[in-house]
Amino acid sequence: MGGIVKQLAVLGSTGSIGQQTLQVVRALPDRFHIVGLAAGKNLELLTKQVNEFRPRFIYYQDRETRVRLTNGEYEFLSPEDIARHPQVDTVVIATPGKSGLSPTLAAVKAGKRVALANKESLVMAGEIITDEANLNGAQILPIDSEHSAIWQCLRGEMQPPVQIMLTASGGPFLHYSPAQLNKVTIDQALKHPSWQMGRKVTIDSATLMNKGLEVIEAHWLFNLPFEDIKVLIHPQSIIHSMVEFADGSTKAQLGYPDMRLPIQYALSYPERLANPQLPRLDWSRINSLTFESPDLDTFPCLRLAIEAGRKGETYPAVLGGADEVAVELFLSQRIKFTDIAHLVEQALEQHQVIAYPNLEGILAADAWARRKVTELATGDNPW
Amino acid sequence: MGGIVKQLAVLGSTGSIGQQTLQVVRALPDRFHIVGLAAGKNLELLTKQVNEFRPRFIYYQDRETRVRLTNGEYEFLSPEDIARHPQVDTVVIATPGKSGLSPTLAAVKAGKRVALANKESLVMAGEIITDEANLNGAQILPIDSEHSAIWQCLRGEMQPPVQIMLTASGGPFLHYSPAQLNKVTIDQALKHPSWQMGRKVTIDSATLMNKGLEVIEAHWLFNLPFEDIKVLIHPQSIIHSMVEFADGSTKAQLGYPDMRLPIQYALSYPERLANPQLPRLDWSRINSLTFESPDLDTFPCLRLAIEAGRKGETYPAVLGGADEVAVELFLSQRIKFTDIAHLVEQALEQHQVIAYPNLEGILAADAWARRKVTELATGDNPW
Repeated sequence: MGGIVKQLAVLGSTGSIGQQTLQVVRALPDRFHIVGLAAGKNLELLTKQVNEFRPRFIYYQDRETRVRLTNGEYEFLSPEDIARHPQVDTVVIATPGKSGLSPTLAAVKAGKRVALANKESLVMAGEIITDEANLNGAQILPIDSEHSAIWQCLRGEMQPPVQIMLTASGGPFLHYSPAQLNKVTIDQALKHPSWQMGRKVTIDSATLMNKGLEVIEAHWLFNLPFEDIKVLIHPQSIIHSMVEFADGSTKAQLGYPDMRLPIQYALSYPERLANPQLPRLDWSRINSLTFESPDLDTFPCLRLAIEAGRKGETYPAVLGGADEVAVELFLSQRIKFTDIAHLVEQALEQHQVIAYPNLEGILAADAWARRKVTELATGDNPW
Repeated sequence: MGGIVKQLAVLGSTGSIGQQTLQVVRALPDRFHIVGLAAGKNLELLTKQVNEFRPRFIYYQDRETRVRLTNGEYEFLSPEDIARHPQVDTVVIATPGKSGLSPTLAAVKAGKRVALANKESLVMAGEIITDEANLNGAQILPIDSEHSAIWQCLRGEMQPPVQIMLTASGGPFLHYSPAQLNKVTIDQALKHPSWQMGRKVTIDSATLMNKGLEVIEAHWLFNLPFEDIKVLIHPQSIIHSMVEFADGSTKAQLGYPDMRLPIQYALSYPERLANPQLPRLDWSRINSLTFESPDLDTFPCLRLAIEAGRKGETYPAVLGGADEVAVELFLSQRIKFTDIAHLVEQALEQHQVIAYPNLEGILAADAWARRKVTELATGDNPW
């Protein structure tokens, strides 16, 4: 096949995005080489991955297991040290939640190509991360399907867009009334109509919080004001997002809902690689693509996220931390689905903002929000 | 506004595309300057345009009128001489029918930027024109909305597409049965559901011949084999065409049906210029975009055009010449709507192909097809 072999580190290799990243690498072994793998859980899968891809560097969260795995040709490093290692040129950040923040920062400070699937990094610390990326010549390559779509549409354009339209499937509860929403179960919330994803992001898709987080990410990735970022419900999930230009022309990127395409695009960019495992749209079977406006009253998380994004400072960190705990509480059957938004809203209302926060301030706001939501939901005082 | 002022010649300035080109120039007077105007008919409108834009060079088809108009500061030149004049950097070819061929050839031989709205040039002589463009460093910038869409989607991409999908509204007779189609009137055929265009192209849209001609154009513009060019019926005419890449990703360009956008894009490229007169998509009013396969049995012109394109040589010239005469015969109520396809098919069947034709061979095939259709339709012997 020719072309450069990219040297990859995959952080979060046992999660949904991590596994799909390795599927892409497996399909294109002449183009990608795994230098590092890091995982927090699922030792069995990590061991399989290590045996298959033979990375030079590995990380596993548990210290005991660390020792056991070091028998062999691998070197144990922290996720941050893997991310900044000179032998790595592209770092895939598929680490879940706020634990993605520190390796993302390490990777951008080291000037790497950073294929970013972790939402929390940009939501919590978008300014710090994009500033460090600019300072150190790092490229942030989005792996989210929506941001990949926008990035693909902006390719070759000389001017910034005047507007971007992030599409959203609407999740499993599209067109539900508030009363119906009040009674939904975990199983219903975990059944996403078009995407196969991890549990946290699936619940966030059902509340539309996920789309709100993506609006904040888009703000940082594409340097656009919030008023130029719109959300459009598109239940078929074929158009992954759209961009409007100064002359009124709009471009869209389309494909079946399959994360391997945005993953591969970020890894292969600026090339596009033929991969027979990736599906091609079959237009004889696509009859209709539909669109509607999101219902911000029934799905307040989207509104809360955009407001937090606009306010900036430590508000997005509070939003993210509060949501993560609220989703966990819902998944452990301790609160109702509709409580997720209520808890996030209360945390945002009670937050004492820190202006111009540094990383410590952001992490403190996140920690405060987590404790606050626990307290509000359970009556326990975690302080 | 800054930026370079482009020096334009508009050939066919009194037709639909010509007038819309001048609307764009009128909206962006700091960026475009009219150096030349040429028209075949409508002296009154040409005179108005000359008085408004004060071009250095003009052409009008009728010799008598020529003398009258030369009173003043203008110089009379042939369309070809305007197209190749050193003071002109961009030539808009909005000349209708085969009379666009000769100025297009003059413009590409002179290495100009050629904003091409005339379909017949590439349909009849695609190989000659693209060869001359490559040889002389001319750029052919498509003005058709479909080809502009493809060109916009290819922007910044390093690799050729694996497939393009030309969208078609389906015209006013979408879902008509052959029996219904047999009885349609001129007025019905001239009522296009989404586009305002000239009479010839409106009838060609109703027969789907227009889409067939566009397939042949796309073959030459984007250097793609016919099997990688698909046609998709999309009645809303919002997606103007789509491109699929090696990795399975598809990009689309969208906008309301308004020719001023592709015209302006071709003129301003690689810049995009803000023009408040151009409409922006209002997604609160777009509920559904639908797609279906074209019915090649009921609309045989599309099939005939693709077959003629595949066969190449003088077949596309016969297709174009036969269609032009057949459409004229329909518009003068001498044949039925469904006779258009029958006459074109008979002309193609009876044609004695010329292999590797030069321009004379192509023009001879076109002339033969015109006489043949007249003879077949009217019984008159025009030979």
